[in-house]
Amino acid sequence: MTIAYSNTYSLVQLALLCTVMTFLEKYGLGAVGFTMLLTTLNMECNLIIEGLFTGNLSMSMDSIINAEFSAAALLISFGALIGRATPLQMCVLSIAESLFYALNKVFIVFGLFKAEDVGGTLTIHMFGAFFGLAAAYALGPQQKESASNNGASKVSDVFSLVGTTLLWVYWPSFVGATETGDDTNEMHCLINTIMSLLGSTGAAFYLSQYLNNGKFDAVHIQNSTLAGGVAIGATARLAMGPGAAFMVGLGAGIISVLGYFYSSPFLEEKFGLYDTCGVANLHGYPSVFGGLVSILLVIFNSEADFLEYGLVTQSIVQALAVVATIVTAVVSGFVTGKVVLRNPASFAEVPDYEDAVWWVSEL
Amino acid sequence: MTIAYSNTYSLVQLALLCTVMTFLEKYGLGAVGFTMLLTTLNMECNLIIEGLFTGNLSMSMDSIINAEFSAAALLISFGALIGRATPLQMCVLSIAESLFYALNKVFIVFGLFKAEDVGGTLTIHMFGAFFGLAAAYALGPQQKESASNNGASKVSDVFSLVGTTLLWVYWPSFVGATETGDDTNEMHCLINTIMSLLGSTGAAFYLSQYLNNGKFDAVHIQNSTLAGGVAIGATARLAMGPGAAFMVGLGAGIISVLGYFYSSPFLEEKFGLYDTCGVANLHGYPSVFGGLVSILLVIFNSEADFLEYGLVTQSIVQALAVVATIVTAVVSGFVTGKVVLRNPASFAEVPDYEDAVWWVSEL
Amino acid sequence: MTIAYSNTYSLVQLALLCTVMTFLEKYGLGAVGFTMLLTTLNMECNLIIEGLFTGNLSMSMDSIINAEFSAAALLISFGALIGRATPLQMCVLSIAESLFYALNKVFIVFGLFKAEDVGGTLTIHMFGAFFGLAAAYALGPQQKESASNNGASKVSDVFSLVGTTLLWVYWPSFVGATETGDDTNEMHCLINTIMSLLGSTGAAFYLSQYLNNGKFDAVHIQNSTLAGGVAIGATARLAMGPGAAFMVGLGAGIISVLGYFYSSPFLEEKFGLYDTCGVANLHGYPSVFGGLVSILLVIFNSEADFLEYGLVTQSIVQALAVVATIVTAVVSGFVTGKVVLRNPASFAEVPDYEDAVWWVSEL
Repeated sequence: MTIAYSNTYSLVQLALLCTVMTFLEKYGLGAVGFTMLLTTLNMECNLIIEGLFTGNLSMSMDSIINAEFSAAALLISFGALIGRATPLQMCVLSIAESLFYALNKVFIVFGLFKAEDVGGTLTIHMFGAFFGLAAAYALGPQQKESASNNGASKVSDVFSLVGTTLLWVYWPSFVGATETGDDTNEMHCLINTIMSLLGSTGAAFYLSQYLNNGKFDAVHIQNSTLAGGVAIGATARLAMGPGAAFMVGLGAGIISVLGYFYSSPFLEEKFGLYDTCGVANLHGYPSVFGGLVSILLVIFNSEADFLEYGLVTQSIVQALAVVATIVTAVVSGFVTGKVVLRNPASFAEVPDYEDAVWWVSEL
Repeated sequence: MTIAYSNTYSLVQLALLCTVMTFLEKYGLGAVGFTMLLTTLNMECNLIIEGLFTGNLSMSMDSIINAEFSAAALLISFGALIGRATPLQMCVLSIAESLFYALNKVFIVFGLFKAEDVGGTLTIHMFGAFFGLAAAYALGPQQKESASNNGASKVSDVFSLVGTTLLWVYWPSFVGATETGDDTNEMHCLINTIMSLLGSTGAAFYLSQYLNNGKFDAVHIQNSTLAGGVAIGATARLAMGPGAAFMVGLGAGIISVLGYFYSSPFLEEKFGLYDTCGVANLHGYPSVFGGLVSILLVIFNSEADFLEYGLVTQSIVQALAVVATIVTAVVSGFVTGKVVLRNPASFAEVPDYEDAVWWVSEL
Repeated sequence: MTIAYSNTYSLVQLALLCTVMTFLEKYGLGAVGFTMLLTTLNMECNLIIEGLFTGNLSMSMDSIINAEFSAAALLISFGALIGRATPLQMCVLSIAESLFYALNKVFIVFGLFKAEDVGGTLTIHMFGAFFGLAAAYALGPQQKESASNNGASKVSDVFSLVGTTLLWVYWPSFVGATETGDDTNEMHCLINTIMSLLGSTGAAFYLSQYLNNGKFDAVHIQNSTLAGGVAIGATARLAMGPGAAFMVGLGAGIISVLGYFYSSPFLEEKFGLYDTCGVANLHGYPSVFGGLVSILLVIFNSEADFLEYGLVTQSIVQALAVVATIVTAVVSGFVTGKVVLRNPASFAEVPDYEDAVWWVSEL
């Protein structure tokens, strides 16, 4: 349990190295520091809210791991908004998201539907991505002034990539964090996640150089290599075999690279939806893919005694949980965005990618 | 045990990322390299000295973890001296401190008083801080020439903050490292430490921007967020409840930020006590606070069967152990400082914050 | 097992921070990104090839740890070649090495000879180093044009050193990764490795400043401090006592520093053997030393019931396994180098230390 905690919390914190280090050059203190602030704030809220929702307010390592899962969802949303909201606004959003996250997880996905989602494909990645994207949409298009600061430096690009490899390493124990008491389930979680990550890594490297005339795009390698971890979460406990897990990762990696290549510019141009870290491509599409895959995979895995329903019913339940999570996330994210972020002055006038605006430093 | 070892040693080594990376710009090789040298040297001495003192020289994972605890105390002292002593002087100081550290721990805190201090609030943080501060005082005021090199760069500031988040993550398993065989005690150590860190993190962020007109001071966030981990060590095994642990961290965080804001400039100006990393503020004051809190908390926790005495006696013992540790640390640190660091030439003339003085590098 | 996996994989990935970060300045994306690509590719091949060779294709955490061991050998070879081969060439070499690695390990070291090598001194470090050196020799001397880019920057030098300390921390659990089910063996692996690393760290610091008029050479500290971990792998399960393990590390550290100081310039000048990261000095010579030490140590440790033969026979077997591994690695590495890397155009004309050649980045 110590380990599950350490690795899980490491993953939550290391998320900053990956999604956020891109902003080292001008916004490094904000990226790392606000990640710390928002993570701890969200954990505190979740310990109370999820405790109230489940009727069990007593503290345990499990409740702390669940609080870290909640913080992971928040950090995903943060990835769509970073650099475009003030710290105070993000704090309010962090509190609001902890409420809606727990509501979707406790009452909808695991309460109403009893869906299978051991690694949080639906509850964490899908909810976090669509909540953040809806809030970003509510926020409106990126100000040109501010966008010019969204540049990576050479050093930050390399360290973001180091963060990716560390996320890769810890991801399997994140997916299996709640299964440490059950050797078989934990082993399936670990092996399936590793195989899926191997699949998405291969897909990302191959497709990236294919689309770029033989060169690798740093953004694809920093992100899409991890898409397999996002997609496998819903089905990681199933004894699907290493080949199936590899294919899930392969599909997720392809979808993620295509998202960065085609979808991001399209959404920004056509809908004014500015997604700072490409959360839609790493967490949004791959989690939808992972959810859809779970509809199929539960049919072909009849031995799983931890599933709540017969296999066809379980399939329907998986599909409904995907739809319900997306709807809940989009509605609550959009409303939260409009309420929390409605003051336009704080975006138009503040050069908010600059650390100097929010930080005192001896430099 | 493997895990406790890995996490503990990680923490010791990562301490460099936090307290030491501030000096990346001009003194990065020295900060990281000398940390490595001094840590290993101190561990070797401790394995022999603490073995002789306890009458058990056989090697085990426990003795290695204890050696790492000793190295942690040394690194805290190093934080008060870094950049102002030659590597050879620091090696001698490392050996001397391993002797006095073991003396205080084995014969005074746990021997004479049988105090409760599972996470090393007294034996590690308090001893290390006051030993280092006394040695720094013996060394005299900072030379102006040299002080100008004590600057952080933008990159080093951000990486110091990354180091802080990693220390945050590993801290709970450091506090519970010797309790891995007892599930209940370990769980209390982990949960209390996490709650205390949550408290100090919140306090540091709030108070830092309150004192700086709405801006966060990077130094506060890099350090004071961890003060809860320092303060909770003496009482982490007690079933105090998450609220009490949170309050311990809250208090420690407030004290630590106030220390950086008011105490450091005061000590430097009035007493010529130059504390390079602000060891007094992160380890000194919060450990005293944690020690004083332990006087109260042992009274309100009557169920703790691991306490040596009845609860009122245990309170008195805690108070005496705090006083004895401070006295031992200050006296031994001051004497060591005078003996080891007495040659003034090595400070006045050497631009010792420069890596080029001590390192050959291809650059 | 989760832990063994996490720590082992961390080590494999962190290897990049140590051996590879030296190239951050111009080749950072390539160093980190290609490490990721080659590691995953090699693991995939090994899962199939070693599965076929051992007749057990079923997937388990053990098979994944073994795949990581294979990737570790590849990364060592990569250290001798980095910056001088195209990504595609390295991919082919990665696949070829996974075949020859498994052949040497399964059929020769553990099959034919049943040698003792729990931590991979022979199978991983010796094979990886000599395979890579033979391939580098096949590749021919370094082009002057390209060599000028092989420079470390201040930041990369410091982060390489941070990588060293992390490798130091994780190394013991790497050596004991396959012994997690046996408490006594695991404890011996951990303690022997720690003692050996303490020995090589001391040796590297002392000898480095001795050879450089009182200054530490960053390259020695970044590498030779770890030589104890390389050398102890063959004998880490033996109950040799902490003193013996310390001496093994001491010897390995001395050999490694001497290698960097005398051997590297000699090999480059006389034989045109350009070894980018000094793989011969960190993995080559220390692994030979560790192999020779194992010949002696198995004689003095009669209690080890896991040894296959009587102790004198075991000694002979250890010697034969060393010779066989070197021969297999050199022959297969040279042939692979000639076949894979035979097109001279890709080296002479491409400024391949430049990330811009292989990467698309927003900078």
